[in-house]
Amino acid sequence: MSQQYSSVLLEKAVSEFSKLPGIGPKTAMRLVLHLLRQNVSSVESFGNSIIKLKHEIKYCKICHNLSDTDICNICSEANRDHQTICVVENIQDVMAIENTHQFHGVYHVLGGVISPMDGVGPSDLQIASLVDRVVQSEVKEVILALSPTMEGDTTNFYIFRKLADTGVKLSIIARGVAQNDELQYTDEITLGRSILNRIVFTGQI
Amino acid sequence: MSQQYSSVLLEKAVSEFSKLPGIGPKTAMRLVLHLLRQNVSSVESFGNSIIKLKHEIKYCKICHNLSDTDICNICSEANRDHQTICVVENIQDVMAIENTHQFHGVYHVLGGVISPMDGVGPSDLQIASLVDRVVQSEVKEVILALSPTMEGDTTNFYIFRKLADTGVKLSIIARGVAQNDELQYTDEITLGRSILNRIVFTGQI
Repeated sequence: MSQQYSSVLLEKAVSEFSKLPGIGPKTAMRLVLHLLRQNVSSVESFGNSIIKLKHEIKYCKICHNLSDTDICNICSEANRDHQTICVVENIQDVMAIENTHQFHGVYHVLGGVISPMDGVGPSDLQIASLVDRVVQSEVKEVILALSPTMEGDTTNFYIFRKLADTGVKLSIIARGVAQNDELQYTDEITLGRSILNRIVFTGQI
Repeated sequence: MSQQYSSVLLEKAVSEFSKLPGIGPKTAMRLVLHLLRQNVSSVESFGNSIIKLKHEIKYCKICHNLSDTDICNICSEANRDHQTICVVENIQDVMAIENTHQFHGVYHVLGGVISPMDGVGPSDLQIASLVDRVVQSEVKEVILALSPTMEGDTTNFYIFRKLADTGVKLSIIARGVAQNDELQYTDEITLGRSILNRIVFTGQI
């Protein structure tokens, strides 16, 4: 549907919002008109927040997480276990794991997983820098926390081979039935693996 | 869920996007990370488009539509019928009617409808300026094209009373079954009205 805009300025703003993933022209229009109803300082704050982010954001030189500083706040925290590295796909995964409060080591953000279909090869990811990190500092354990998908597993296996000679302990996060899943609806692979990888029950979950 | 952001800049941008209607924190994060992957000029173009819009947009002095100029391009078009005014709720409705190519008059954008529940009274809308427009210029017909809701009808009736003394012809858009509606699923009020307001069939729709 061709839209008849009464204003070139409006059309330009709607067109910019329409470029965002999952935002169609009607939603873009709704968002732009919503912002237009806010006061000038709110709109400036909105527009400048993303421009400032783009200009000033850094990638942590150690773990490649997004950071305001050269070394991110996790990597620079003395209290954490710097000998245990959790390998994740992206920054959202760091946040998700941090929210569990179950991990006190540091991270390594790959920036994706190997995916020939999407043209993503090992050299597009922070794998070489992971190997360097393991070789150069006293890392005891690398925990692989990638998505349990074909691409994630390809990447797991690639990293496994790259780190095999370093002697570092390699582990992978457990796969099994999720909390509150109903067994009858759990897929066969997951259920089968949860039986194979069963653990000793001590009376506590 | 409290999110642990690795960057204050990122947190600020995500928080700004989360203020948009229908955008939760996870979607906001996705949008911000998408923009972060674009080049600097694209991000500046995005951020500045909304700031520029807010600073430079005008409301047409005649019809109150959004416009780049004091008088919008519809009101300043000589070819249109300036004696027929179509009253609509908002700018999206202007665009929707323009897209039908069935109307060649001009518009009057009320900026909403009377809604006591939302605290919107007649003085919050461009009703007085509509009456002025009808009184001061040679308007022959005012077409009411508001939403077929209780609030829309309240507003229709209010405008009807305000314009009653001016002698202008008042009309209202037809209500009836929509194209491709199935009659059995059409609500009683709409179906009843479509029978009461039936028109002479000339062999053409």
